[in-house]
Amino acid sequence: MVKFIALYRQPADTALFDEHYTSVHTPLVEKVPGLKKLEVTRISGTPMGKPAGYYLMAEMYFADADSFKTAMASSENRAAGKDLMSFAGDIVEMMVGETVE
Amino acid sequence: MVKFIALYRQPADTALFDEHYTSVHTPLVEKVPGLKKLEVTRISGTPMGKPAGYYLMAEMYFADADSFKTAMASSENRAAGKDLMSFAGDIVEMMVGETVE
Repeated sequence: MVKFIALYRQPADTALFDEHYTSVHTPLVEKVPGLKKLEVTRISGTPMGKPAGYYLMAEMYFADADSFKTAMASSENRAAGKDLMSFAGDIVEMMVGETVE
Repeated sequence: MVKFIALYRQPADTALFDEHYTSVHTPLVEKVPGLKKLEVTRISGTPMGKPAGYYLMAEMYFADADSFKTAMASSENRAAGKDLMSFAGDIVEMMVGETVE
């Protein structure tokens, strides 16, 4: 599976971030064509209980490189991307990868 | 689910890293008690095709906080952790999180 990974650093206002992420951003992401699964992970800290470098991770799964490419070019993805930049453009780090079977 | 996330930065020698990761480290991780799933993702770059900050991500899934705690305290996990430090201590970033249902 091809994965789009978004790692969010600590937001300045976590309540505001959570509200926008859940109510506005997630519904937009869920509309992206070809999305097989969205997994969101709340980061609690390092294994030693210290603050971690990230606050939240989102993983979007696509069947293969072709469906990922189609998804990225879609108007739904542009809408999700525009929203992302509006509320988290300064704290998000994005990566693309492929799961090892 | 509780997730242990290991993010690896670019290794100096990727062939050496891959060989150790696959042949030595993964079998040790798979012995950790309570491990429900291990998902390894090879990072190819950013969505814009630029080099990403990380080379590989491993996610270890556990049913809940209790089984995670038991896993962390196990001799199998100590062996995996010792191995991790031996080949990637300088490039790994570790985090603990919980999936949002």
